[in-house]
Amino acid sequence: MKKLEKITPWKQDFAKWYVDVITQAELMSYGPVKGTMYLKPNGYAIWSSIQDVLNFIFQELSIKNVYFPSLIPQSFIEKEKQHVKGFAPELLTITHVGEKKLPENIYLRPTSEVLFADFFKKEIAHKNKLPILLNQWCQVTRWEKTTNPFLRTTEFLWQEGHTVHEDSSKAKKFAKIMIENYKFIVEKFLAIPVIVGKKTQKERFAGAKTTYTIEAMMKDGRALQAGTSHYLGQNFSKNFDITFKNKDNQLEYVYQTSWGVSTRLIGALIMTHGDDRGIIIPPAIAEYKVDILAFFVNKHPNLKKAILKLSDELDDFHITNRVDLSDNQVGFKIANSEVLGTPVRIEIGPRDLEAKQVVVVRRDTLEKKIVPTSQIVNHLEQLFQEIQANLFEQAKHRLTENIVYVDNYENFKVAIAQSRFVVVAFSETQKQEIKIQEETGATSRCIVSNKDFIIPLPAEAKSLFSGKKTNKFVVFAKSY
Amino acid sequence: MKKLEKITPWKQDFAKWYVDVITQAELMSYGPVKGTMYLKPNGYAIWSSIQDVLNFIFQELSIKNVYFPSLIPQSFIEKEKQHVKGFAPELLTITHVGEKKLPENIYLRPTSEVLFADFFKKEIAHKNKLPILLNQWCQVTRWEKTTNPFLRTTEFLWQEGHTVHEDSSKAKKFAKIMIENYKFIVEKFLAIPVIVGKKTQKERFAGAKTTYTIEAMMKDGRALQAGTSHYLGQNFSKNFDITFKNKDNQLEYVYQTSWGVSTRLIGALIMTHGDDRGIIIPPAIAEYKVDILAFFVNKHPNLKKAILKLSDELDDFHITNRVDLSDNQVGFKIANSEVLGTPVRIEIGPRDLEAKQVVVVRRDTLEKKIVPTSQIVNHLEQLFQEIQANLFEQAKHRLTENIVYVDNYENFKVAIAQSRFVVVAFSETQKQEIKIQEETGATSRCIVSNKDFIIPLPAEAKSLFSGKKTNKFVVFAKSY
Repeated sequence: MKKLEKITPWKQDFAKWYVDVITQAELMSYGPVKGTMYLKPNGYAIWSSIQDVLNFIFQELSIKNVYFPSLIPQSFIEKEKQHVKGFAPELLTITHVGEKKLPENIYLRPTSEVLFADFFKKEIAHKNKLPILLNQWCQVTRWEKTTNPFLRTTEFLWQEGHTVHEDSSKAKKFAKIMIENYKFIVEKFLAIPVIVGKKTQKERFAGAKTTYTIEAMMKDGRALQAGTSHYLGQNFSKNFDITFKNKDNQLEYVYQTSWGVSTRLIGALIMTHGDDRGIIIPPAIAEYKVDILAFFVNKHPNLKKAILKLSDELDDFHITNRVDLSDNQVGFKIANSEVLGTPVRIEIGPRDLEAKQVVVVRRDTLEKKIVPTSQIVNHLEQLFQEIQANLFEQAKHRLTENIVYVDNYENFKVAIAQSRFVVVAFSETQKQEIKIQEETGATSRCIVSNKDFIIPLPAEAKSLFSGKKTNKFVVFAKSY
Repeated sequence: MKKLEKITPWKQDFAKWYVDVITQAELMSYGPVKGTMYLKPNGYAIWSSIQDVLNFIFQELSIKNVYFPSLIPQSFIEKEKQHVKGFAPELLTITHVGEKKLPENIYLRPTSEVLFADFFKKEIAHKNKLPILLNQWCQVTRWEKTTNPFLRTTEFLWQEGHTVHEDSSKAKKFAKIMIENYKFIVEKFLAIPVIVGKKTQKERFAGAKTTYTIEAMMKDGRALQAGTSHYLGQNFSKNFDITFKNKDNQLEYVYQTSWGVSTRLIGALIMTHGDDRGIIIPPAIAEYKVDILAFFVNKHPNLKKAILKLSDELDDFHITNRVDLSDNQVGFKIANSEVLGTPVRIEIGPRDLEAKQVVVVRRDTLEKKIVPTSQIVNHLEQLFQEIQANLFEQAKHRLTENIVYVDNYENFKVAIAQSRFVVVAFSETQKQEIKIQEETGATSRCIVSNKDFIIPLPAEAKSLFSGKKTNKFVVFAKSY
């Protein structure tokens, strides 16, 4: 039988808590090559839900799924100078097949811009029809010095979208549409509030003109980049000679975007909603919305029948559920449901059966309610909405409470030391960002608009070091 | 604008026809590394449909999806001797990260038995709960000397299922269940009839005790292995030390299976149903069941409105459809719908609009029918069933007509030269199979049961070379 071990309290040791939760909730275990994961059924189910939601959005936007090779010839990746500089140290390199040396080294894709560039070039020459809107679900490989489950792994799953447009404004607009979609999905389905902004030049994707990002705040106050969307301009089209015939029948370089989210989101989910009992999965993406736990079932044969009937009824209303009829102890069954993060559990014992009622317990607040069996479906549907909203509100509250506007470097350092997000007027150079990173451990997360920001910001203010007036505000934080 | 080029007639040059169809139907184009593919939206859509159907079956069978690494340390793959022997010459080998040499070579997975073995060992030690039924959707990599789109590519998409059982009979039974499921799906959804059987020792999967296979006949008479299911016995559990505690509390090696289908099925689909106009996609898996082609739409503004209304109506009945309102010529629109293999096209011109009717054309027989607009949904739903059945029956007819029972080597050679499947009594050694392959180009496809076979077979007969009486019958054919 599976054993449940104690989870380290998150306030005591956040990193240890994170790994304990992942292990106990059976989300992943370690693969044999450094930094690789066996993504287990419970972890994969979360990713599957994210895929379903995104595929729905892609379909609405007429984005088509494709699958391109994971293998990139060395000569290809070297065509875009900034791009290769960004990825070269992380590239896994194939030099042989069996014992035989290959004539040219092959890299495992760390991302697929160069492959899509090659594809688009041929495709447009054949059809000359723009835009082209493609997405790929795949694994990518990046050799990282230090790894952390879901957050930074040698291999991970993601989707990478790649689009081609006939002018820069359409491409820019599309890059923005995608970051807004990411915000929508992450907030609505994963119940994780995010800040939307642009990356500074230092943090920009290798090869992009603009990188839009959504940044979330984990329970320990650190930032997690949860999704990015890049306006690539003509960087790749010029290097790969991707042209189309414009209205005047002239050849012109195309404008591109790329955008992605990854299994990092599972890490974000754990570190946003998890607690000392395990993970909490928002109902909107839970594989099982309800665990039905039967107590003393072996002594009461009618109980099993009643529970299976209840399970069928929930099925009929598309309320996914899982029944625990095992002869494990009551305490174990409850702890197991809690560690797995099922949004609601229903407890039924012999006395409940007699009273035609069940006990409903929400995972987020642990609140218990006795509900007549006849009202269970309505009650649950209402409860899922409450849980989804509560998870989001809790996280939003934490974010709002822990983000501060500062106007000098002393306060900046204090706030970072308190594990907060800091917003500051900032029109400085890359050098100053590096100085901040060295002195405080914080990196710039994104440039934000002072309009409608999560906390009030002035119209303009003096830049952190230079003192020059600016309306450019940047969020800094320690990050994953 | 996209141009349609002439497709080589299939009876003239089957190989060229195959590539022409793939290109014109926009299923794939070639990637930069030898034998890799850009799987384009039309090709990926077919794979997506296959995934949906299989995921449904997996759910029914309580098989859970996971994702495991694509990276295998050299030391791992060498643990199972037969297995590594089978795959070693095809292994893409990672020796470096960037410029740095790795301490141990890493292989790209050609299949994942050794990774699942490693996972199962740890998983069972933790839980000791059997069976474990897992599936993985992923890409795998095998360096092949000669490649052919979908059929034999350096990298391809597949699903690989891996299960662990507590005794051999349960594992064997599961391997059989999966091959029967593959038969069901390939016949029911892809409309491709198959022969089910066991591989001979020579053709068995490297590391398996028994390999079950489904074999399909392509239009040119060649066989295509469309799916396999392996009973692995204790081969991997002994080499990887995967044990469980049995009822007597004794440690015992587990029994395993693995099974898979791949994007080869797209090749099978093309070569089973395609014709000189393009591919034909069975309605059961078509992304778009209907193309609605508007003729002279620019001159008749009401036409556009009527067509969009029809499209909406079909949507309401979940009849997926695509509208062509372009000002392309009539002939081009028709040819384009045909090459893409959409099961049904609806043609509407100004006169049809006036007469409150549409012209419905089936892709399989090219039969045209005038249908009152009011009856279109019922008509289509009936028609999809007819098309699905007809595609299967046509292929089944071809298979039955082109499979022959022979009782001597002369007739065997004649039949193979005529591009037929040959069934023969065969209780010979591996040596004799190699002789047949060298002399005729045919390989053994599978050992079949003489009961309920697609053509009548005797209860027993003299084996092809030895003349010894046997009830073992083997299908031979040239194959992809």
